[in-house]
Amino acid sequence: MADTRPIGMFDSGVGGLTVLKEFRKQNPQENIIYLGDTKSFPYGSKSKESIIELTKKGIDFLLEKNVKAIVIACGTATSQALEEVQKQYKIPIIGIIDSTVQYIKEQTKLRKVGIIATTGTIRSKGWQNKIHSQIPDAVLSYKACPLLAPMAEEGWTENEIAKLTIQEYLKGFYDIDCLILGCTHYPLFKKCIQEELGKKVEIINTGEKLAKDMQKILINEQKQNESTEEGNFEIYLTDTETNFLRVASKLLKDTEIKEKIKKADVE
Amino acid sequence: MADTRPIGMFDSGVGGLTVLKEFRKQNPQENIIYLGDTKSFPYGSKSKESIIELTKKGIDFLLEKNVKAIVIACGTATSQALEEVQKQYKIPIIGIIDSTVQYIKEQTKLRKVGIIATTGTIRSKGWQNKIHSQIPDAVLSYKACPLLAPMAEEGWTENEIAKLTIQEYLKGFYDIDCLILGCTHYPLFKKCIQEELGKKVEIINTGEKLAKDMQKILINEQKQNESTEEGNFEIYLTDTETNFLRVASKLLKDTEIKEKIKKADVE
Repeated sequence: MADTRPIGMFDSGVGGLTVLKEFRKQNPQENIIYLGDTKSFPYGSKSKESIIELTKKGIDFLLEKNVKAIVIACGTATSQALEEVQKQYKIPIIGIIDSTVQYIKEQTKLRKVGIIATTGTIRSKGWQNKIHSQIPDAVLSYKACPLLAPMAEEGWTENEIAKLTIQEYLKGFYDIDCLILGCTHYPLFKKCIQEELGKKVEIINTGEKLAKDMQKILINEQKQNESTEEGNFEIYLTDTETNFLRVASKLLKDTEIKEKIKKADVE
Repeated sequence: MADTRPIGMFDSGVGGLTVLKEFRKQNPQENIIYLGDTKSFPYGSKSKESIIELTKKGIDFLLEKNVKAIVIACGTATSQALEEVQKQYKIPIIGIIDSTVQYIKEQTKLRKVGIIATTGTIRSKGWQNKIHSQIPDAVLSYKACPLLAPMAEEGWTENEIAKLTIQEYLKGFYDIDCLILGCTHYPLFKKCIQEELGKKVEIINTGEKLAKDMQKILINEQKQNESTEEGNFEIYLTDTETNFLRVASKLLKDTEIKEKIKKADVE
């Protein structure tokens, strides 16, 4: 059976597009509705209560668009709100933590684990708790990096300031096997981060792991779009913003992206 | 006559405290209620429509606290929403632009004027239009600096990254007499900015100019608090956030500031 309904993706801004990109690589036939809550960006330093409220509004908007499953493509919303929204909604909702933790668990050589994320994500202990319960022998180190997401939105991902900021934030990570990019903006800094940590450290893009898991869910629930044509994607933003467009065109290598962006009325 | 009602101050975060600080220097007897809309911080890249909506909610909150006048201690809210809220409310409301433009107008040696501010403020042309109409012979140069406010909230105001970011943003300002700090966070970078531009350039802290104007309004309307005791201040935040506390304690040199902070329910 073919289920042509779209997948809903939710993020606070442009960062979730790194997840969209990975997802489209692995599931090119699926249609996608992406909602970026740019009006409330950044989520990183907001309270759990606020993030749950905003995430629920985002999910309600996507449900009105008749989506068949939802990806929380935002590190902060995953760590602060996923558990709550999974309880409240019947539709499959996945976030960026579980798939990555499962991957690390299976890779037995990855036990010294580093995590970088926003202040809200680190404070929520979402990653820390999941890793401790799933991989008890993992040694964790983590750091909140509140400037990286705004810096990515500014488009500074490879300049000297980005390098120094990455250096400053990664100072504490002496001896790790892998570094989880716990915010979906961070793959934009992958080059700088890899240079700083060296090639022996595996940089984990959560979008890659999540895209595989979503595929499994769609197969299990017989919700795959079996079309042989490439799927469409539409982008809704709660506030129009020029930076989104600039970063999105660069990231998706899509010069016509402007036509895919619409204003979302989320109340 | 003595009017002991408080002055209301509104900002998107911690930046407006630079205005509060200047105001208290000049008007130590006045009571102040400060509202920081940390839940929606930063305003800098939001649309005019969103900023007007948020500013009105902030003003309504302050009016419930029985304030006698309101200071919009936020560059973005001043440039995007002040005109609109001045039309809609009867209470005196002042923002950060008019007092500074009046000051520059009177200083006839200041005609090559630079402005740095958030993306929203620069895009709104609030400063540019006011200066063109009030000081037709001024030569303006301006630059949006979206990372400075989040960097101030991170507490990076004098490190190497702050210096390079300031250098990057100030590159275009070759020959100016003065630089307006068009966002209330920016006085936190005053040292770096002065070093970069040299001593000949006057750095204008809008809070200083605004504090004098508010004093005049209170005298004209006979609303001064004539108490000889030092006034109190209370801080309300729409979202609790640890960064606010850290930057606020440093800025106000007040180790007991935590006790002055309350959660605001703004709907």
